[in-house]
Amino acid sequence: MLSRQQLITHIRQKKSFLCIGLDTDIHKIPAFLHRYDDPVLEFNKRIIDATQDLCVAYKPNAAFYESRGVKGLQSLIDTYQYLPKDCLSIIDAKRGDIGNTSDQYANAFFNEAESGMGFDAITIAPYMGNDSVIPYLKYEGKWIILLALTSSVGSKDFQYLQSDEGFLYQAVIKKSATWAGADRLMYVVGATKGEEFANIRKLAPDNFLLVPGVGAQGGSLEEVCKYGITKECGLLVNSSRSIIYAANDETFAEAAREEAKKLQQAMAQELEKAEII
Amino acid sequence: MLSRQQLITHIRQKKSFLCIGLDTDIHKIPAFLHRYDDPVLEFNKRIIDATQDLCVAYKPNAAFYESRGVKGLQSLIDTYQYLPKDCLSIIDAKRGDIGNTSDQYANAFFNEAESGMGFDAITIAPYMGNDSVIPYLKYEGKWIILLALTSSVGSKDFQYLQSDEGFLYQAVIKKSATWAGADRLMYVVGATKGEEFANIRKLAPDNFLLVPGVGAQGGSLEEVCKYGITKECGLLVNSSRSIIYAANDETFAEAAREEAKKLQQAMAQELEKAEII
Repeated sequence: MLSRQQLITHIRQKKSFLCIGLDTDIHKIPAFLHRYDDPVLEFNKRIIDATQDLCVAYKPNAAFYESRGVKGLQSLIDTYQYLPKDCLSIIDAKRGDIGNTSDQYANAFFNEAESGMGFDAITIAPYMGNDSVIPYLKYEGKWIILLALTSSVGSKDFQYLQSDEGFLYQAVIKKSATWAGADRLMYVVGATKGEEFANIRKLAPDNFLLVPGVGAQGGSLEEVCKYGITKECGLLVNSSRSIIYAANDETFAEAAREEAKKLQQAMAQELEKAEII
Repeated sequence: MLSRQQLITHIRQKKSFLCIGLDTDIHKIPAFLHRYDDPVLEFNKRIIDATQDLCVAYKPNAAFYESRGVKGLQSLIDTYQYLPKDCLSIIDAKRGDIGNTSDQYANAFFNEAESGMGFDAITIAPYMGNDSVIPYLKYEGKWIILLALTSSVGSKDFQYLQSDEGFLYQAVIKKSATWAGADRLMYVVGATKGEEFANIRKLAPDNFLLVPGVGAQGGSLEEVCKYGITKECGLLVNSSRSIIYAANDETFAEAAREEAKKLQQAMAQELEKAEII
């Protein structure tokens, strides 16, 4: 469990607001790992060992584990168990369902005694409204990270629909701000549109934003910080593929560290620029 | 795999458009089942044995299995394997993510060789747009069931936002109709607002609608049919709790059959009224 204040402290100490996405695809990891009982777990452990001083969060993407059935779920549970406690553990699950079903998903990802997993935070889709979000808040100290503006092509289909409340993604931020404060609620905001962060900061001045799209998807860290950084940082920038697949041989963990280090150093500069460190 | 035509044939033969939701909560099933290795699987098998001539679809809700970790996933896989092939098998997962992640979720629920599960259909959340939907269509003959208008209180938060394209849920139907036809795409439409079906039929005249909310959530079958039934039926009405938890002792399967039978008989009347049988 990491409070907002602890997260901010770690960001200052590590000079980093990097989140590493563990989108671990068994078909993409180095071949030599297949000699291990659980190649995905072995890959994740080595990535974590090589990067944990450079990042403040890890974010396994549930889909990449679910795709392998029971074996994959076991990899996810064992990966969760291996995550360092000083990093925010985020399950990227993008769930969203009615209240009694959300209770069950909260069990799946927050209740370690029931499922083997007790993540600090979960990504949630807003389409079904408040009862798809609020059940997760029953777990004291846990975070919800609500989809607002995502980074892929499909984000244009509905998130920019113009409504009485502004774009749909703006309506999502406005409404959800009445459900929880910046100590429990973050938003997913893609890095692909730097200027959009200025609009978002008007609606969510204090919330942490989880920002995918830097790296493989082409977003710029400098742009994101220019419009999105706050006095307490307020950003977790995620990178997945460009770090974890930086090399495809025995050197993969070292190569991942190099990529993470580059991002961490760029982040340290941004933190200095914003006078946070 | 069930084509649209096969589904319609089964509806006519069974005089039913009932979908039974397997939202099986290990804490709610009869106590005597806990003597079995997998009480949830045993419960599901008995419900299926008792009802399969009365319904045309089964819909396990992923959350109720995920909440129990690896054991729960094994119950889900074994339940999938037990489902009768003449019923549409729907996994109620409400996934929605960017393209490369959607590929993984499609693997998880459609690719039996990889995950142990090869459902006919999956429920999907539309918030992230086309690349969160289209990857599932690569699996020939499989169905996507997109959330449009859901049945719980939270549905009012965003689905009724007024946009240039009508309410958000109407914009979802209009846009998604350009991605797939009525042979591959259904919509979730809650039973709680009967008259709304008339509006939906203007936008989706031929698509099957998966209708939760009859039973425990208070929706009326007659209302739904009045506004939503088509010449080929076009409805799958789901009931979960009111069937599977009809009794809490040794008679539970028999009691579930009685509840399912009542709904099936009411459906037969509606099919006759609409001159489908």
